[in-house]
Amino acid sequence: MEAELQTQTYECSIEKALNVIGGKWTFLVIRELTHGKKRFGELKSAIHGVSSKALTDTLRHLEVHDILVREAFATVPPTVEYGLTVKGQALHKIIHEMKMWAREWA
Amino acid sequence: MEAELQTQTYECSIEKALNVIGGKWTFLVIRELTHGKKRFGELKSAIHGVSSKALTDTLRHLEVHDILVREAFATVPPTVEYGLTVKGQALHKIIHEMKMWAREWA
Repeated sequence: MEAELQTQTYECSIEKALNVIGGKWTFLVIRELTHGKKRFGELKSAIHGVSSKALTDTLRHLEVHDILVREAFATVPPTVEYGLTVKGQALHKIIHEMKMWAREWA
Repeated sequence: MEAELQTQTYECSIEKALNVIGGKWTFLVIRELTHGKKRFGELKSAIHGVSSKALTDTLRHLEVHDILVREAFATVPPTVEYGLTVKGQALHKIIHEMKMWAREWA
């Protein structure tokens, strides 16, 4: 029973991960932020084909799940920057393995 | 220029990977098949919440992209099994890193 329980918890961990990082644009936003903080406009132009609404929704989803933080600066006009949290930075291994797989197979 | 080109190819490799493995149910199908060949019914009951149509579409998408193979057996009634190709099995590292991340953060 113990082993079975362990497999179950091990299995549904993928579903838990996908709930957070499974969205269409999520990995591409995270990829961009692994290179450092970015503004909305920088993300929009770096991610091919994303609409402003889809990017806004993705950023809000990732903020709610503590993958990134949103920093507002009292400049004129005000500016906002997005950056990965420690939890978000921990995703870099998944991103790295994706790049390795794609380089060999895609 | 060389470094920039390299980053670009390195960057769009994620998009190429996501085109193949980015679907909502894709990772869950691949997770199941890493444990060995499965039939449609087995996949349907193992993947919480997937509809028959979504599973059919995901399996066809993964077959077209050479991630899995579909084997039909002339039993009565005929049976079909799905199994990962070498290209599909190479995804296990991504799956593993997702589980590790989820175990710590999700």
